[in-house]
Amino acid sequence: MNVVHIREFQEMMKHLYFNRDSERGVKGTYDWLGDELRELGEALEEKGEEAVEEEFADVMAWLASLANISGIDLEKATVNKYSGKCPKCQRSPCQCTF
Amino acid sequence: MNVVHIREFQEMMKHLYFNRDSERGVKGTYDWLGDELRELGEALEEKGEEAVEEEFADVMAWLASLANISGIDLEKATVNKYSGKCPKCQRSPCQCTF
Repeated sequence: MNVVHIREFQEMMKHLYFNRDSERGVKGTYDWLGDELRELGEALEEKGEEAVEEEFADVMAWLASLANISGIDLEKATVNKYSGKCPKCQRSPCQCTF
Repeated sequence: MNVVHIREFQEMMKHLYFNRDSERGVKGTYDWLGDELRELGEALEEKGEEAVEEEFADVMAWLASLANISGIDLEKATVNKYSGKCPKCQRSPCQCTF
């Protein structure tokens, strides 16, 4: 598997972890995602590419888990807001002046 | 655009924001991602589905931006760790006992 749709990844995470994610709940899963983001920050500061890749994967995984138990389609949400142009200035590349 | 590969989304973010993301740098972009995660947490607690979807989209967007300026292929990183089974127990669904 080397070309993966966002939705496909989210579905895989649902198959692997939905029961456990549901038991843990939205708050607990959100907190865990925060922990993974902190680990990514540490890896970016201190560690090599392999560790950084693993931490990016974990953030993606926990974000998909959180979306699953929140009833959100991550691909739809993402495409609705970001579809080829900046949602603020409507340009591509973005030309926002802030 | 309604079926999106993780890589395709990351490439779109690169086209839209790479210059600005590069100027801001890894630390500043990581901090912004943290802010977006906090906003997602607030939306999950207080707001409706549309706002929650937008915040999920923003976290995905900033995670892709951070991957771009860190030289990480988010799809490759994700698939390397999560490819149809739990990376810890090697089962599907996960049967980890922790």
